[in-house]
Amino acid sequence: MAEKKVFEWRIAIADNKSIQKLEPQNHESKSIRLHDILAVNPLVIRVTRFFKTAWNLGVNDPRKVIHGLKVALAMTLISFFYYVRPLYDSFGGNNAVWAVMTVVVVFEYTAGGTLYKGLNRIGATLLAGFLGLGVCLVANETGPIFKAVIMGVSLFVIAAVVTYLRFIPVVKAKHDYGCMIFILTYGLVLVMGYDGKQELIDVTNERISTIIFGSCLCIIISMFVFPVWAGTELHVLISSNINKLANSLDSCVYEYFSPGDEEFKKKLGEYKCVLNSKASEESMANIARWEPAHGKFGFKHPWKIYIRIGATSRSCAYCIETLISHMDSKTRVPELIRKHVSASSFKVSSSSSDVLRELATTVSTMTQSTKMDSAVKELNNAVQQLQNDLESLPDLLIQSHEKYDLLEVIPLVTFISLLIEIALRIANIVKVVDEFAEVAKFKLAKDT
Amino acid sequence: MAEKKVFEWRIAIADNKSIQKLEPQNHESKSIRLHDILAVNPLVIRVTRFFKTAWNLGVNDPRKVIHGLKVALAMTLISFFYYVRPLYDSFGGNNAVWAVMTVVVVFEYTAGGTLYKGLNRIGATLLAGFLGLGVCLVANETGPIFKAVIMGVSLFVIAAVVTYLRFIPVVKAKHDYGCMIFILTYGLVLVMGYDGKQELIDVTNERISTIIFGSCLCIIISMFVFPVWAGTELHVLISSNINKLANSLDSCVYEYFSPGDEEFKKKLGEYKCVLNSKASEESMANIARWEPAHGKFGFKHPWKIYIRIGATSRSCAYCIETLISHMDSKTRVPELIRKHVSASSFKVSSSSSDVLRELATTVSTMTQSTKMDSAVKELNNAVQQLQNDLESLPDLLIQSHEKYDLLEVIPLVTFISLLIEIALRIANIVKVVDEFAEVAKFKLAKDT
Repeated sequence: MAEKKVFEWRIAIADNKSIQKLEPQNHESKSIRLHDILAVNPLVIRVTRFFKTAWNLGVNDPRKVIHGLKVALAMTLISFFYYVRPLYDSFGGNNAVWAVMTVVVVFEYTAGGTLYKGLNRIGATLLAGFLGLGVCLVANETGPIFKAVIMGVSLFVIAAVVTYLRFIPVVKAKHDYGCMIFILTYGLVLVMGYDGKQELIDVTNERISTIIFGSCLCIIISMFVFPVWAGTELHVLISSNINKLANSLDSCVYEYFSPGDEEFKKKLGEYKCVLNSKASEESMANIARWEPAHGKFGFKHPWKIYIRIGATSRSCAYCIETLISHMDSKTRVPELIRKHVSASSFKVSSSSSDVLRELATTVSTMTQSTKMDSAVKELNNAVQQLQNDLESLPDLLIQSHEKYDLLEVIPLVTFISLLIEIALRIANIVKVVDEFAEVAKFKLAKDT
Repeated sequence: MAEKKVFEWRIAIADNKSIQKLEPQNHESKSIRLHDILAVNPLVIRVTRFFKTAWNLGVNDPRKVIHGLKVALAMTLISFFYYVRPLYDSFGGNNAVWAVMTVVVVFEYTAGGTLYKGLNRIGATLLAGFLGLGVCLVANETGPIFKAVIMGVSLFVIAAVVTYLRFIPVVKAKHDYGCMIFILTYGLVLVMGYDGKQELIDVTNERISTIIFGSCLCIIISMFVFPVWAGTELHVLISSNINKLANSLDSCVYEYFSPGDEEFKKKLGEYKCVLNSKASEESMANIARWEPAHGKFGFKHPWKIYIRIGATSRSCAYCIETLISHMDSKTRVPELIRKHVSASSFKVSSSSSDVLRELATTVSTMTQSTKMDSAVKELNNAVQQLQNDLESLPDLLIQSHEKYDLLEVIPLVTFISLLIEIALRIANIVKVVDEFAEVAKFKLAKDT
C-alpha cells in the first residue's frame, strides 16, 4: 500500500507540473505523464536498469559481444554440418546431439579456457570410452547376475573415486572438467552397453569422433576468430594493477598534504581492484598454461611468476589501504609539522610511483628498463631524506617555542612510517619482476 | 644423465650401508635396496605424494569422501532404474543417457549448489524446450528454405544473446548454469526437429521428464543423505575467521612485547585465511539463498549480511597484516619506552580479541551476547589508556635524562597507532553484527 501511495503522489506532481508549464502543448504533456508513470513502475525500472547494464558492459568491452557471436557461429556451423550430413538417422540423431552439446559446454571466453575444456573432454572421453567398452565386453562374457554386479560395482567405485579426486588441488586445477567427463562417459557406455548390443562399439566410436570434431571446431574458432588469450589478459591485468597502485599512492599523499584536487580524489580507490584479484589471477595463470605460443609469449612462458608478482602487489595494496585509512587524521596535525615533512613525503610518493610505473612498463613491454636502477636509487634517497626530516622534527619543535602534544604528531608519524613501509614492499615487487626478467630473458628497452 | 648418476650413487651408498650394518640378515638388506631404489624414483615420489595428499584430505574432512559415495550412489541408482525399466529402446537409450548426464553435472558438494544447478537445469530445459518446439512447429509449416533460415537465424540469435547475457553480474550469480542449459536445449530441439519428425514432441517430453527425475534424485540425496549446507559452511567460515583475527592479533602483540612463546608464533599467521576469502564467501552466500530452511537458519535468513561481516573482517585483516610487518622493528625500540606502553598495549590487544571472540560467538550461536557492551566499553577504555600512556611518553623521556632519538620511538608509535586503528575497525564489525542481530532477530544468550 505504501508503495502505491508514493506512486499516486508522484503522478499528481507530474500532473501539476505539466499543467503549469506546458499548458499550450497539450500533446507533449500527455506523453510526459505516460513517461512518468512508466518511470516509477518498479518492473520498468528493473528492466531498464538491466538493459543499461547489458549495454554498458558491451560498450566497455566489445569482446564480450564478439564472444556471443563466436559461440553462435560455432553452434550454427555445427548444426548445419549435421543438417547436411545424412548421418542423422544412424543412431537417433545422437551425433548432432553430442556435437551441439560439446560446443555449448566447451566454448569458453578465453582461448586457453576452450583448449583446457576441449582437450580434457577429448582425453577423458577416450579414456573412459575404452575403459567402459573393455568392462562391458568382459561383463557380457559372464552370466546375467555377474554382469549386473560387475557393471554396478565398477560404476559405483569409479564414480566415488573420481568424484573424490576432484577435491585434490592439483587435479582440480588441471583436470576438474576431465574428471567430470570421465565419470559421465563411463556411465553412458555402461548404461548403453547393458543390453550387450553389438553396435555399442560403433556408438562409442561415433560419440568420440563427434566430440573430437566439436571440440576442434570450438578450439579453432576460439583461437583464430578474434581470440581472447587468458595469458594476455593476465599479463595486462598484472601490469595495470601495478599502475593502479601508483595512482592510489600518489592521490593519497597529495590528498594528505594538499587536499582538494578532484582528479586525484577519483584515483584514490583504484588500489581496491588489487585487493581481491588473487582468485582470478590464479585461474588465469592455470588456463594460460594450456595456450600455445601467441604474440610475445613463448610456449614455456613463466605464467606462474605472475601469481607471485600479483601477491607482492597485493601486499603493497594492503599497506596502501591502511595508509588511506590514516588520511582522516591529517586535520589533527599542526600545520608547521606537516609542512616540515611534506616536501620529502611528496618525493617518496612520487619516486615510489615512478618505480611502480616503471615496473608496470617492464612487465607490460617485457623489456628490461634502463631507468629502473636509477628510479630505485632515487626512492632509497627519498626515504633516507624523509627519515632525516623526521629525525630533525624534535629540533624544529624546540625552535618554534610552541608546545606540541605528542598525540598531535602521532598521526603524521604513522602516516610516514606506512609510506616507508610501502616503499619497502615495492622493493619486493622489484625483486620478483627482476626474477621474471631473468627467467623470460627480457631484452633491454630501446630508449637507452 | 645427471639424474641417473645421482641415482646410481645413492644405490651405492645404500649398498655400503647394508653391507656394513646388516651383513647377517641378507634378506632384509635386499629389501632395503629395493625400497631405496623406489624412494629416489621421481615418479614413485610423485605418486606417493599424490596419495598422501589424497589421504590427508579425506582424514581432515571425511565429508569429501562421503560426497564421492553420494555421487556414486546417485549414479548407480539411476542407472539401475533405467536397467530395470524397459524404456531403453524407445529412443536409442536416450533416456538413460540424459539421466546419467544430469546426475554427473548437477550433483554438487553442497545441497545449495545441487539445488541451484538442478532447478536451473529444470527451468531452462522447460523454457528452451517449449520455445524450441514452438519454433520448430512454426518453421515446419513454411517451405524448406524458409525453414532452414528460421531455424538457423533463431539458433544464431539465441546462442549469441544468451551467451552475452551470461556476462551480466546478476545473471552470472543466479542463472549462469541455466543460460548454458537454455542454449543447449534449444540447440538440441532444433537439431532434432529439423527433419520435422512427429515424435519430436515425445522426445522433448521424455528429455524434460528424465531431467526432472535425475535432478530431483540428486536434490533428494544431496539434501537428505549427510547434507552439506552452503549456508552452514558460510556461517562457520565467517565466525571462525573472526576467531582467527583474534588469535593473530594476540600473538602479534605478545610477540612484540614478550617474544619467544611457540604457541603464539604458530597462531600468528592465521589471519591470512581471512585476506583472500572474498570470492568463496560470495559464492557461498549466492548458493545459500537456494537452500530451504535448515537447522537454525530460516527460509529468509539474511545471507547477504555475511558478505558484509566478511568485508569488515577483511578490512581488519589488512590492518593486522600491516601490524605484523611492523613487528621486526621492535628491536630498535629502547627497552624503557617499550615497557612504558606494554601493559596498556596488552590490555588493548586482549580486550580487542575479547570483543572479536564475543563477536564470533554471537555469530556462531546467533544469540545476542550479554557481555558485548561491557567488552566494547573495556576496549574503549583500554584504547584511551594507551593514548594517555603515549601522551605521557615525552615526560618519561625527560625524566629518564637519557637522550633518545625520535627515530627510535617511531616504530613503536606506528605499532601502537596501528593497534588503535585495528580497534576502530573492530568497531565496524560490531556494527554489522549488531545489524545482523536485528535483522535475524537474535535472542538473548542464556548465560546472563
